[in-house]
Amino acid sequence: MADNARIDPRTLKGFRDYPPALAIPRERLMDTIRAVYRGYGYVPIDTPALEYTEILLGKGGEETDKQLFRFNDGGGRDVAMRFDLTVPFARFAAQHIGQLGTPFKRYHLAPVWRGESPQRGRFREFVQCDFDTIGTTSNAADIEVALVIGDLLAALGFERFTVHVNNRMVLNGLLDELGLGDKVGPVLRALDKLAKVGADAVVAEMVERGVEAGAARRVLELAGVEGSNAEILDQLATRFGTNAVAAEGISRLRQLLDVVAASGAPSERYRIDVSIARGLDYYTGTVYETFLDDLVAIGSVCSGGRYDDLASLYTKTRLPGVGASLGLDRLVAAMEQLDLLGDVAERAAVLVVQFAETGLGDYHRLARQLRAAGVEVEVFADPKKVGQQLAYAERRGYRAAIIAGPDEIAEGAVQLKDLRHGTQAKVAEADLVGAVRAVLEGP
Amino acid sequence: MADNARIDPRTLKGFRDYPPALAIPRERLMDTIRAVYRGYGYVPIDTPALEYTEILLGKGGEETDKQLFRFNDGGGRDVAMRFDLTVPFARFAAQHIGQLGTPFKRYHLAPVWRGESPQRGRFREFVQCDFDTIGTTSNAADIEVALVIGDLLAALGFERFTVHVNNRMVLNGLLDELGLGDKVGPVLRALDKLAKVGADAVVAEMVERGVEAGAARRVLELAGVEGSNAEILDQLATRFGTNAVAAEGISRLRQLLDVVAASGAPSERYRIDVSIARGLDYYTGTVYETFLDDLVAIGSVCSGGRYDDLASLYTKTRLPGVGASLGLDRLVAAMEQLDLLGDVAERAAVLVVQFAETGLGDYHRLARQLRAAGVEVEVFADPKKVGQQLAYAERRGYRAAIIAGPDEIAEGAVQLKDLRHGTQAKVAEADLVGAVRAVLEGP
Repeated sequence: MADNARIDPRTLKGFRDYPPALAIPRERLMDTIRAVYRGYGYVPIDTPALEYTEILLGKGGEETDKQLFRFNDGGGRDVAMRFDLTVPFARFAAQHIGQLGTPFKRYHLAPVWRGESPQRGRFREFVQCDFDTIGTTSNAADIEVALVIGDLLAALGFERFTVHVNNRMVLNGLLDELGLGDKVGPVLRALDKLAKVGADAVVAEMVERGVEAGAARRVLELAGVEGSNAEILDQLATRFGTNAVAAEGISRLRQLLDVVAASGAPSERYRIDVSIARGLDYYTGTVYETFLDDLVAIGSVCSGGRYDDLASLYTKTRLPGVGASLGLDRLVAAMEQLDLLGDVAERAAVLVVQFAETGLGDYHRLARQLRAAGVEVEVFADPKKVGQQLAYAERRGYRAAIIAGPDEIAEGAVQLKDLRHGTQAKVAEADLVGAVRAVLEGP
Repeated sequence: MADNARIDPRTLKGFRDYPPALAIPRERLMDTIRAVYRGYGYVPIDTPALEYTEILLGKGGEETDKQLFRFNDGGGRDVAMRFDLTVPFARFAAQHIGQLGTPFKRYHLAPVWRGESPQRGRFREFVQCDFDTIGTTSNAADIEVALVIGDLLAALGFERFTVHVNNRMVLNGLLDELGLGDKVGPVLRALDKLAKVGADAVVAEMVERGVEAGAARRVLELAGVEGSNAEILDQLATRFGTNAVAAEGISRLRQLLDVVAASGAPSERYRIDVSIARGLDYYTGTVYETFLDDLVAIGSVCSGGRYDDLASLYTKTRLPGVGASLGLDRLVAAMEQLDLLGDVAERAAVLVVQFAETGLGDYHRLARQLRAAGVEVEVFADPKKVGQQLAYAERRGYRAAIIAGPDEIAEGAVQLKDLRHGTQAKVAEADLVGAVRAVLEGP
């Protein structure tokens, strides 16, 4: 084809390819995440990438609208690509919960799409890893979510991280008591500036928005509670526990920490943080954010909380629940920065050199024996020079190579090369699986 | 919310949800497929769901165009959702093959979208599982594809299936020799009616389209070759092997079958079938189709072949290759029909009954011990009646339940219930992992 007839190969702005060096660890992480979720009895579901726009937008408003990849399909339907996994889950639950029964614990690992301005490592397509328990208000489900988050980060290879927990009921109870039920939005927006502008400016802003100065000071008092978990619980109980709603929130937080400790999970990783009640509007009870101690700046890598009713837009069946979502691609970026991804560019462990085309039957016979023993094996595609094939194996990060010329095959043996140490030994076929394992598992 | 303000929860025409009963086996199948691909040294890649329409359409023509979910994105770009994994792989290879080097062996499991009329169990969103080796013309790569297909179906639990193989070079060589290089399309379309209308009508149609009667008979002679693999190879060699291109195709087929047999793979599952050269236009060498012996009517579940140049639309780097694609959702439907999916509706093996909320710390301590031993465990969310919790466990297909009231906990013991046999025994905590394993692995 003439050069000028060619199409410039490129991805869309905000989208990216995942070559093996990224796709391999990503796949491994997803396997680990699924295993942790399954370990707690969550089960997978999947939903379509495309939904009716009406379903996705619901009450989501304009900002969400702008982020949608939205169009009319061939049948004239107003459709869009999902922008999260929560809305499709709500729609799914409204349709299927009758058959599935409650409590229903599901996980969903899938890409979502948002047309946001791509920046700071954010892409327009990214994988979310959600898990939720719906159909129960029990604190047991909230506690489990905290345990899952801790297990998840640990299983992914992180040692230094903190799960921040709080309960919206404390703030909600206080605001109710102060008669600020209709001013939650302005109060939270003012509070969010606390670290930047200081307490006095926050009070001033609240007063400007019609909050009495005394009430504003009370809200700030809650926002200022800090210390150890035990100290925070005590202060919350003493200063805010007279309100029944707040007391219930405090009691749930206390039980969460007690059970985490009693379960044997590393309780030093859990911290009550009254500030995280603020950003997560949707939630009504326990809230979670998870920070990597060595990369706090990237923000929470796993967030979630309890909600009163998942699917009220689609069904009158009330579905309270609790869950959280892990952002896979943000986590991969973090692991890249923290050098946790390892240098495993490729996964197959052993290359069988194609010494001569006539040996293919034997090479595949050997490869089958190794695969049956769980070893990943590539038979090289071309009978190139042995040195070229070994260079390929090293570039791919393989640990071992098997070289078998006609003489070795006739003897029922092979040359086994340890690619990390550069050593080589003749091994009888009967001993091959053991010898390969010794190389793979050796230092 | 008032009923009339609710949105009707529904999926788009041609799309479907995957509840756990389908999502669990699907996930397990994908794990198996990835493991087989990795076992041969193929590595994963991923590409965006959305691409420039220009990239996806290439020379694809009108029919493909109609199937596209195509729209203008927020930035005014003409974009579309991928309709297969081959075109994105071609674009990917054109961009990245310089860094990746050849041979490059990749797999890609991902959904694709086509706006076809949904019918006969076909959906507008479905998962394809592709694997390819590019950058080599070696028959070793073709042979490996045949081996992978066989391993794949076996690993997925099929015992009765047949991998049909052929080589386009035999037909291409014959057509060249007959001077029919410019009539390949009409000849193939006529040939496709052979089973329906018989040989004479096919010859008549070819003659009508300007093919000499003698040439038409020769083409039909090739289409009529049948028998055992050895008989077919002999007939092909004797009757068509004088053409160099055809001879090369015959030689490659022979080597494929020889190596499969020598490798120890079940060679009775491989069959030369001259008819499968016809439908697969894109391919230039070895072609593969895979039929389930007990469900031939659903068509090939894994098809592929060798091509001369993957990415000529996007790069002048010539990338010959060979690969195949397994249609996951067609396979799941087949397994459903053949009762191969099993009755495992849920995956967690053990339910810990929530006897009382105060026991949560202990329940989670026990659950952690079991998870550390690789057992999936759910702690029930609510302290409902034990009978209700056990009914939940049975509905979910769990094998065992752990019931631990305050008395048992005080004793350091639990009641372990075998849900399949309805038996129950007191087990010391120290023996719990072993006792649970005995129940899970028992008859």
